[in-house]
Amino acid sequence: MKFSQRSRFAGNVIEEEDAFAADLVRSGKQIIKLNRGDPVAYFPTPKYIVDAYIRALKSSKTGYSFHAGVPELREAIALRHKKLYNLDVGAESVVVTQGVSEAIIFVNSMLVDTGNRAVISRPYYPLYLSGLQINGGAPVFADYRNGEIDVDLLRRRIGRTKGIKYMIFANPSNPTGSVMERKTLKEIVDLANDLNILIISDEIYDEILYNNSEFTSISEVSGGIPAVIFGGASKCFDATGFRIGYALIPGEDELSLEIKKTIADYAKMRLSSNTTAQYAFADAIKDEKNHRIAIRGMVNEISERINFAYDLIRESRRMDISERPRGAFYLFPKVDIKGMDFKNDRDMIRKLLVEEGVQITRGSGFGAQDNIRIVSLPPKDILELAIRKIDKFLDRHSR
Amino acid sequence: MKFSQRSRFAGNVIEEEDAFAADLVRSGKQIIKLNRGDPVAYFPTPKYIVDAYIRALKSSKTGYSFHAGVPELREAIALRHKKLYNLDVGAESVVVTQGVSEAIIFVNSMLVDTGNRAVISRPYYPLYLSGLQINGGAPVFADYRNGEIDVDLLRRRIGRTKGIKYMIFANPSNPTGSVMERKTLKEIVDLANDLNILIISDEIYDEILYNNSEFTSISEVSGGIPAVIFGGASKCFDATGFRIGYALIPGEDELSLEIKKTIADYAKMRLSSNTTAQYAFADAIKDEKNHRIAIRGMVNEISERINFAYDLIRESRRMDISERPRGAFYLFPKVDIKGMDFKNDRDMIRKLLVEEGVQITRGSGFGAQDNIRIVSLPPKDILELAIRKIDKFLDRHSR
Repeated sequence: MKFSQRSRFAGNVIEEEDAFAADLVRSGKQIIKLNRGDPVAYFPTPKYIVDAYIRALKSSKTGYSFHAGVPELREAIALRHKKLYNLDVGAESVVVTQGVSEAIIFVNSMLVDTGNRAVISRPYYPLYLSGLQINGGAPVFADYRNGEIDVDLLRRRIGRTKGIKYMIFANPSNPTGSVMERKTLKEIVDLANDLNILIISDEIYDEILYNNSEFTSISEVSGGIPAVIFGGASKCFDATGFRIGYALIPGEDELSLEIKKTIADYAKMRLSSNTTAQYAFADAIKDEKNHRIAIRGMVNEISERINFAYDLIRESRRMDISERPRGAFYLFPKVDIKGMDFKNDRDMIRKLLVEEGVQITRGSGFGAQDNIRIVSLPPKDILELAIRKIDKFLDRHSR
Repeated sequence: MKFSQRSRFAGNVIEEEDAFAADLVRSGKQIIKLNRGDPVAYFPTPKYIVDAYIRALKSSKTGYSFHAGVPELREAIALRHKKLYNLDVGAESVVVTQGVSEAIIFVNSMLVDTGNRAVISRPYYPLYLSGLQINGGAPVFADYRNGEIDVDLLRRRIGRTKGIKYMIFANPSNPTGSVMERKTLKEIVDLANDLNILIISDEIYDEILYNNSEFTSISEVSGGIPAVIFGGASKCFDATGFRIGYALIPGEDELSLEIKKTIADYAKMRLSSNTTAQYAFADAIKDEKNHRIAIRGMVNEISERINFAYDLIRESRRMDISERPRGAFYLFPKVDIKGMDFKNDRDMIRKLLVEEGVQITRGSGFGAQDNIRIVSLPPKDILELAIRKIDKFLDRHSR
């Protein structure tokens, strides 16, 4: 029996070696996992959030909840965006999803027919592309230059292309760690306005900022044109395993209302998100004092670690990185793979696992085949060990 | 901007009036909600499961987990099927999903291209049809007769139809409460074998059995042909808000292996299910003694309530029900809607909400436009009140 055409787009480069790595672990090998951007692996979810989760469990919040999210959480999310970005928005503009992943899957299913196009910033988060392709869509890439989307290049590249459904980018960026300037965001808004393209801004890392970066939410510059904003518990609230994200649609125009309604219709299909975790996330947002302490502590530490790792990589003969990250927690150095004895970058990733016990992610999964993505969350000693192992490995395989 | 063709299939009849009902509640109306099959609303999740959930939280199980599920849970699920159905299967045959809903969405995306067909038992769970249609598929219906799928009729209906990807049914059935005889399941296996159709058996209610019903898992009669079995925490473990289900693929044939791999690829796209709830569900399965006490207590009570409600409906002049349910927790009586003053059955459901404050689900969403689905979980006094309200309402609107 044949599987569907679209099924070949299922998968995720970030997890593609997880089963292989688990086999190595079972055979006694130690693995340093630098593939998944999971802060919880190094910073336990703050106690005040875990306590809120336990409270919700003890008050029997374990049944189905409203498909678009429990009112307490939708309100807390709306309030969060009001406080952080001065956005005047109500709970009904929020649809709670099972992580941003589900939000990406919903909007693509909702918007994309075979032959449609969408603008994807490159390097991209892998699901942006597979979520588009699985619905028959094709990308127009918006490439970064010096940490910013090159809007002029994008405009030329779009040219007369019709049927572009949306433009998606992550800000701060996964995998590059760049944070977009307000000026660039305004140019993007102008372009979207001119060409009638919906903006989707994935702001899941919006509080993971360091190296004097200044973050601008798309809602601060969109000036009323339709936009969808993604966020969630995973990164800024250090709660990846909750699987609670959201889509926020601030507009009250006809298209925005239709988007809210239709995303909610998708949410109905799977009845609800994890109910208890939603209450925990609502309390996590509302307890601003504890959140401030937790996020500052974590971001300070991430900043220390990623700058340390960045400096190490700068010293490497085999890895090349120019832009110092300013958000999220990834390093995305270039590697001269063609000058090495690998069949391709997947071969390199597998050999690195076997030979050095380090798991990273190949850049081709992010649209950058000469790069590798290194999660820079572990303590410095582990980061140093891993980077030295990678360096030694690349050196050994260079021709 | 136009949305995708497929987006019109998003939604869920079970939740379609939830926002409308919430508005009524806000305006001061009391609503008896009999639309969602949520045991937790009337039977709090057993304490031993909540305690396991809290234990998992306290041991910091709050990060991402393996995309196909934590090993502890996959092993527990495999063991569950070994103990209940003598199925010799390992953890690697299990993919943990965010509820059975996600499993349904995955298999349809995996198998169905535009123009493909699938056999759906009728009355059906709504997502079976929308999950198929959203991927461009079309149904061939397998109708029930006297609580069993009429396999001869189905064989004739299929005729020479090519490209049938799978056959899906719920056993026990939602919405009819019927439990299929072993003999019928064997006929289904023969038909699937003859026509090379994958069997998908949704067994989420496999322990919600009463009125002397005997349940047979498809794995007990499939004799090695490829099959996919759905199950989860929601119903039998009274934990709907966990959003933890699973797809179990027992076979080791080439197709079964490919199905396991591809469902896991879909799971990678959303990184993981709620991690803490997975550990809670694993413990819930493994603590057989406490599970036995909990499921017996709940099923005894459900049996009392649904038989009571069934007898009440038998007395009704306006509702007609023949088959006494033997599993799950729904009643699905016929109503002579054409002999009443409603525009259609959705109009009826809305008017029932406004006039009597009772929320049920229209049968047309299950492929049976003369029926209504009544969740029969509440205590007898509420069930009696609701059924008398429905009866009075139908009487008042009869021509």
